[in-house]
Amino acid sequence: MTINIKNFLRFGERLSKMGDFQELKHIEGLQVSSVSANLYKNGREDLSLFYFPGGANYAAAYTQSSIVSESINWNRENTKNNIKALVVNTKNANTFTGDQGLNSLNEIAKKLIESLKSFEIENKYEKSKVKDLLFASTGVIGEKFPVEKITNNIPNLVQNLRINQNKLIWLKMASAIMTTDTKPKVASSEIKIGDKIVRISGIAKGSGMIAPNLATMLSFIFTDADISSVILNKYLSKVLSNTFNAITVDSDTSTNDMVAIFSTKKIKSKKLNIITSKEALKFEKALSGVCLELAKQIVVDGEGAKKFVTIKIVNSESKEKAKNIAFSVANSPLIKTAIAGEDPNWGRILMGVGKSGEAVDPKKITIKLGEFIVAEKGKISENYDEEKLKEYMEWDSILITIDLKQGKEEFECYTCDFTHDYININAHYRRS
Amino acid sequence: MTINIKNFLRFGERLSKMGDFQELKHIEGLQVSSVSANLYKNGREDLSLFYFPGGANYAAAYTQSSIVSESINWNRENTKNNIKALVVNTKNANTFTGDQGLNSLNEIAKKLIESLKSFEIENKYEKSKVKDLLFASTGVIGEKFPVEKITNNIPNLVQNLRINQNKLIWLKMASAIMTTDTKPKVASSEIKIGDKIVRISGIAKGSGMIAPNLATMLSFIFTDADISSVILNKYLSKVLSNTFNAITVDSDTSTNDMVAIFSTKKIKSKKLNIITSKEALKFEKALSGVCLELAKQIVVDGEGAKKFVTIKIVNSESKEKAKNIAFSVANSPLIKTAIAGEDPNWGRILMGVGKSGEAVDPKKITIKLGEFIVAEKGKISENYDEEKLKEYMEWDSILITIDLKQGKEEFECYTCDFTHDYININAHYRRS
Repeated sequence: MTINIKNFLRFGERLSKMGDFQELKHIEGLQVSSVSANLYKNGREDLSLFYFPGGANYAAAYTQSSIVSESINWNRENTKNNIKALVVNTKNANTFTGDQGLNSLNEIAKKLIESLKSFEIENKYEKSKVKDLLFASTGVIGEKFPVEKITNNIPNLVQNLRINQNKLIWLKMASAIMTTDTKPKVASSEIKIGDKIVRISGIAKGSGMIAPNLATMLSFIFTDADISSVILNKYLSKVLSNTFNAITVDSDTSTNDMVAIFSTKKIKSKKLNIITSKEALKFEKALSGVCLELAKQIVVDGEGAKKFVTIKIVNSESKEKAKNIAFSVANSPLIKTAIAGEDPNWGRILMGVGKSGEAVDPKKITIKLGEFIVAEKGKISENYDEEKLKEYMEWDSILITIDLKQGKEEFECYTCDFTHDYININAHYRRS
Repeated sequence: MTINIKNFLRFGERLSKMGDFQELKHIEGLQVSSVSANLYKNGREDLSLFYFPGGANYAAAYTQSSIVSESINWNRENTKNNIKALVVNTKNANTFTGDQGLNSLNEIAKKLIESLKSFEIENKYEKSKVKDLLFASTGVIGEKFPVEKITNNIPNLVQNLRINQNKLIWLKMASAIMTTDTKPKVASSEIKIGDKIVRISGIAKGSGMIAPNLATMLSFIFTDADISSVILNKYLSKVLSNTFNAITVDSDTSTNDMVAIFSTKKIKSKKLNIITSKEALKFEKALSGVCLELAKQIVVDGEGAKKFVTIKIVNSESKEKAKNIAFSVANSPLIKTAIAGEDPNWGRILMGVGKSGEAVDPKKITIKLGEFIVAEKGKISENYDEEKLKEYMEWDSILITIDLKQGKEEFECYTCDFTHDYININAHYRRS
């Protein structure tokens, strides 16, 4: 699952643990299923169902793009706080599909409700309704939505829900939502709240913000802790900025991005619904950990990426300033190509800081590559050692620290290098 | 000089004429000189002097970066409206050079004033002072500024001023300010104001906004029309947004960018100093034409560029909105790699529109590649013809038109495709 563990360990990154399926936690109150609806024509699973027998509270964040998928429009129009199921398809983004795209979701919803009927009666679950459903789509924009293939496979999807969960099922579900991803992305955490064990497990997809034609970042996180939708939304808002909103592969934003967290309400804990409680902070930290692991896995699997890059801005006047500078550096093609070329080119990093437009004092700023200071006091470091730096740049995980010496705020973001393979994947991709 | 004229002509672009030195105009009141100061070690000319015997009014625009070259700091501190000379060096950006960088400019200035002394006495020109000088630098950041090499060659530089101007000298000067550029960039225009002929000639450099380590966009434009510095500044502000500020190669911004216009005051015309006059509009149009030709030449010579791309946003509510959308599309690595791959991938263009965050109506928007409508009314065009589009994408000059159908404003920007060669140039560049 992990790539180049040795090199990651060399850098001491916790990334080495990512995707370790032994750690994946079962979430009570969640049933899952995935099938091949022949959306891809190679037999891989490409249609998924996440079903909550007892319903789930949820909160979701969507793309900032002004053009969005019909699936996102569907979800946004749904004002219910409690839902029964999430349906995810790959291969087609259901974006710019006109009325056909929206009507398709209605057809699929009806078919799913109908297919769930006997299953729900048999198991004495509450009956699902059309308004209890959410959708997520990822794939090509502007092509006719394959509604028939999907509705034809809804009965299979429901049938498979009877299969019991096990740890490997997380990998299976994470694989079923992939597009050009080369690896499934999974993460879990378990914490003790009072005398109870609370679990959080999540999956994600994304490889390049956008790939192949327009894919998407999707992430679905599940917890058994009983938390209201309003409070879930607060947790999500708090963790997003330092996790999923702290990564960039190519600066492009999809029409379909979606991150959602679902509570199956199985483990009762009032304290978790008081956002300022000690317990809530513990939960927030665990959730943030799961989201950050998923986010980093997306970067590591970035299109053509060979190196994982952390950009850390410290001693900033404000977090906003630190964030602007971090992304200005992280999104610079010149810096990303220098890293691909293993060139300790700190002049470009300085350019990246400057082009953010944020006021900095060039005489105060310090730039570090790993533990090596490369520039300080308005000029190249007196201890600058090109040979050591070149060796460092050969590592798989690169840390760029920029100390502004202006205040106490900081921000860290994550990206990958910009390689020939990115051009290959994106210049030679042909829609089919 | 021009690349693929045939294909440009096929698209009907005026670019075919670019760099035609037969059209270059002599500017009275300007003397120029360039020498090799051995900054590059291959004997090429790398140090230039633009000298105004009778002084020049001028206006300049500098990079928006918060970290800038000492040369820019020098110019910004100069509050004089009338100057005598501009010195341009390549190979070293004089950025992040500490006190050594600033002190170097003082040394060079003193040496130049001293060297000009006998030349000015002999020719009965007014004596130049340190405060009459401007500087521009382009090259590597953070390396010690090669002040000795430059001061040693100042006498040669002044000596060469005696040589007469001819049309070819523009190409020579445009070549002497290059870094990784593969072609000198020149443009000229001549207009009649009343019964007088007024001339505008300019040169530019830039190949990628930033290259090789950190190069720069520099452009110097000269006119013989007598225009005050205040009015020159107004002209410059008016033409920048649709010319030099309408191009992007890699979205990166240099610490050294500078565009300046100089008036040698030889051709008197009061009307040109009244910015609203008919004559002023004529001059503005000619100046804009020169700037746009230079700007387009920079894009065509973009690092690794194989295609010239025009992004035209029409029927926008505001020019600002049109500009944001145009640059969102122009700076998208996914769109630029699709163009490199000759793929009519309109889904990515739609993504580029959406990620601008500007409110658009997906049901109204129309996207065209060349003359072909690819998407309209919220879905793929009914006349979509993949074969024709693929043929179009093989052209060297690609036009993307996005009709928002919301208002009457428009904005056009220019970029190039994103190729393997960009990665090669920037990943494998080694400072030396």
